[in-house]
Amino acid sequence: MPPIRSRGLPLAGEVGVRCSFRHEWEVTDVHRLFALALALAIAVPAFAAGPPVTREQREATTRIIEAAMADDTGWNRLAWLSDRIGHRLSGSPQLDAAIRWAVDEMRRDGFDDVRTEKVMVPRWVRGDESATLLEPVQQPFVMLGLGNSVGTPARGITAEVVVVRDFTELDALGERVRGKIVCYNVPFTNYGETVQYRGSGASRAAKHGAVAVLVRSVGPVSLQTPHTGALRYDEALPKIPAAAITIEGAEMLARMHARGERIRLRLKMEARMHGEVESANVVADLRGSERPEEIVLLAAHLDSWDVGQGAQDDGGGCIQVWEALRLLKKLGLRPRRTIRVVLYTNEENGLKGGTGYRDAHKAELANHVFAVETDGGTFRPEGFGVTASDAAIAQLTELARLLEPIGAARISKGGGGADIGPIMREGVPGAGLDVEGSRYFHYHHTPADTVDKVDPKDLKLCTAAIAVMAYLVADVPERLAR
Amino acid sequence: MPPIRSRGLPLAGEVGVRCSFRHEWEVTDVHRLFALALALAIAVPAFAAGPPVTREQREATTRIIEAAMADDTGWNRLAWLSDRIGHRLSGSPQLDAAIRWAVDEMRRDGFDDVRTEKVMVPRWVRGDESATLLEPVQQPFVMLGLGNSVGTPARGITAEVVVVRDFTELDALGERVRGKIVCYNVPFTNYGETVQYRGSGASRAAKHGAVAVLVRSVGPVSLQTPHTGALRYDEALPKIPAAAITIEGAEMLARMHARGERIRLRLKMEARMHGEVESANVVADLRGSERPEEIVLLAAHLDSWDVGQGAQDDGGGCIQVWEALRLLKKLGLRPRRTIRVVLYTNEENGLKGGTGYRDAHKAELANHVFAVETDGGTFRPEGFGVTASDAAIAQLTELARLLEPIGAARISKGGGGADIGPIMREGVPGAGLDVEGSRYFHYHHTPADTVDKVDPKDLKLCTAAIAVMAYLVADVPERLAR
Repeated sequence: MPPIRSRGLPLAGEVGVRCSFRHEWEVTDVHRLFALALALAIAVPAFAAGPPVTREQREATTRIIEAAMADDTGWNRLAWLSDRIGHRLSGSPQLDAAIRWAVDEMRRDGFDDVRTEKVMVPRWVRGDESATLLEPVQQPFVMLGLGNSVGTPARGITAEVVVVRDFTELDALGERVRGKIVCYNVPFTNYGETVQYRGSGASRAAKHGAVAVLVRSVGPVSLQTPHTGALRYDEALPKIPAAAITIEGAEMLARMHARGERIRLRLKMEARMHGEVESANVVADLRGSERPEEIVLLAAHLDSWDVGQGAQDDGGGCIQVWEALRLLKKLGLRPRRTIRVVLYTNEENGLKGGTGYRDAHKAELANHVFAVETDGGTFRPEGFGVTASDAAIAQLTELARLLEPIGAARISKGGGGADIGPIMREGVPGAGLDVEGSRYFHYHHTPADTVDKVDPKDLKLCTAAIAVMAYLVADVPERLAR
Repeated sequence: MPPIRSRGLPLAGEVGVRCSFRHEWEVTDVHRLFALALALAIAVPAFAAGPPVTREQREATTRIIEAAMADDTGWNRLAWLSDRIGHRLSGSPQLDAAIRWAVDEMRRDGFDDVRTEKVMVPRWVRGDESATLLEPVQQPFVMLGLGNSVGTPARGITAEVVVVRDFTELDALGERVRGKIVCYNVPFTNYGETVQYRGSGASRAAKHGAVAVLVRSVGPVSLQTPHTGALRYDEALPKIPAAAITIEGAEMLARMHARGERIRLRLKMEARMHGEVESANVVADLRGSERPEEIVLLAAHLDSWDVGQGAQDDGGGCIQVWEALRLLKKLGLRPRRTIRVVLYTNEENGLKGGTGYRDAHKAELANHVFAVETDGGTFRPEGFGVTASDAAIAQLTELARLLEPIGAARISKGGGGADIGPIMREGVPGAGLDVEGSRYFHYHHTPADTVDKVDPKDLKLCTAAIAVMAYLVADVPERLAR
């Protein structure tokens, strides 16, 4: 038996060497990753024994990666979605337009059974809004209402501002914030830790009688950049208006407070909830050749906040999963199981797309083999964070080795996505695409979330990572363990 | 003769070791710089031979640095100027307030002959302004009028937009831009290269019949951040309105243009020049003990653009030079020559402070020994860029070695400042404080130029560098060579 390499079996590392000649990729770090992977592939005997994939499957992954890196369709679509439709809040004409556009384009792509699945979503409308600092100086004050917030009376709310560092300080003040506006000046540590002030800060302050809250934006840097996002009211407490302010604004109020200056501010917000309206998840399949009832689900959300272009959150994710399906189809790769793309509605302020899908597909969830969501921005992919059994994680770890050429082979424990959360809680193994996300919270939920923040190469790499993983999980004989 | 160190002569490197015990500075890199300087001082025999300064002068520099690092007066003043007065465009009530405040505070500091020197300045007022993209989609478009721009008619200017990459492309289009709005989408390389589109882009486009220009903001990064700044009209050509747009906006227009989409936009600007009004340079001296007629001038500008707080440009610079003088006085250090602080007016849009000072002090310029301007932002100081004779540069290089403890000893050829430019052209040796300026153009001329962008430690280090340099040049027997 001749040595493996002379049999023409492509080792992972060879992919890049070949690609680099064919396509002249611009970015040398991809070459370096390929070279590294080649070295690893030669050095690690375990690999020569092979992951549980066939020669055809290996070759297919090579073709998928090559095709992803060579194709600008996804980038062009993301730019069009961003520039021509723009941001897409649930219930907005823009989200409706984006849904229609996606369906039309997906039908043009020739996917199986392209459809919308109706979901009722809340329609929150921001309206006009502003803040004016009145004391110790009078000046306009940058703000951006938080999603789901109630508005103010038409004349606004004018009150003294009290600045606190955290809930502990708020609770220590207690009744002393009655009738006042509470400003949370909480520096960003990580999203999970900091976002609670955006989520529950209004009700926590209302409990002590505050009349409104200003929340330092949840992000690490700012160029007068306010970040919106959803709040959740405690139904047992008065609902008071809540707005994001910039790091600059919060720091200024904190300095004024520290100097003992009396701070007064007028907040005007027309925001209000307009009940529920019809929206839809967009669903498209690449039907499985042998086990079409078994589904590998690829998820992203088409809705966004009502600022910027929703390009990083989550237009890019939509294009990644869509492109993954399109490339498989274009390459004539129809795996054993069905691969389904779902562009969810209403991730940002209600999660009705995610719960709606779960409810509509309850009977089929046992046959949902795997769900992958990409909603951490379009940056260099690093692998997948997986919530599944140890056996499933072991299987995925083996399969992911075929992503070593693009540096996206890391399988870590824990992960998923907001939209697939409801089906994961029903037992579906789920994962999230992990990306180099150090800049995500620079743009997240801001007017600066625009398509220029997405590197076209990163979009291709993410597409390749998702397409390869989806293809393999859908095509290997052994179904992913539960 | 005992070894030099046992005589108690403080080597530069010892300063930090002592300071670090006394003041518990927070930032360890300062300690490292001191340690490095100590090592250098021991290792370099040339240094033991000594720069041309006395033991008293060396000790004084140690005390200056220690005092600068221990004192928060400057930071508190910068925060107050930024928060309570805010931005300060020439001719605005805020600049007038800042001038009055500086004079009052400087008199409280007990400087010699604190005074204002009247200068007439242009009063440009922005007024309301907005841009609306009309085609291919209708949406508000972030803009910020350029300083000195004329306004539009009240109904605005509505026209097709043509996007160009540079003047070459503009000139190639020639008459085809007639009646249109020219958008310069010129990526930032460095300030000098890119700012020409802001400065002369309007007239260059007007020459071909354009009706307005949009200029991609002069900066390397953006979170929907427009940068204003001055333009200069060619008096021989029609004056057309000019506005900065963000990198995001410029890139979007460029993508639309590349896709062949027709772009139409409405620009409304009330901007107009309101003639000349009275303003003033603020001048304060620390009169020299032996040669009071010889002047070492420390320069910064108190005016700013009409957005943000003008904290980096150039509030921090004003505080640096002011604090330098205050620390010398506080330490009882009255050098041979006079040290003069000038807080200039109208650096941003006219330079009338700089030319006014030159004209008012024409007879004394021969006795202006040295002028140092700080207008590159308040960041970690690295040294001084000097425009002077080789002999002067050699002298300054020797003196600057006493700044090795704070890493600010680098003397390089070339440098100065806009405000001191007019007296430098009359032969006064001039310099600019060099700082680690990689972030300066993130904030420069934007709503994000706020005091939170200034690190209090950097403000202290800059103050120390300027105070030491001013003290030494003013106190060494040999006058700086011309």
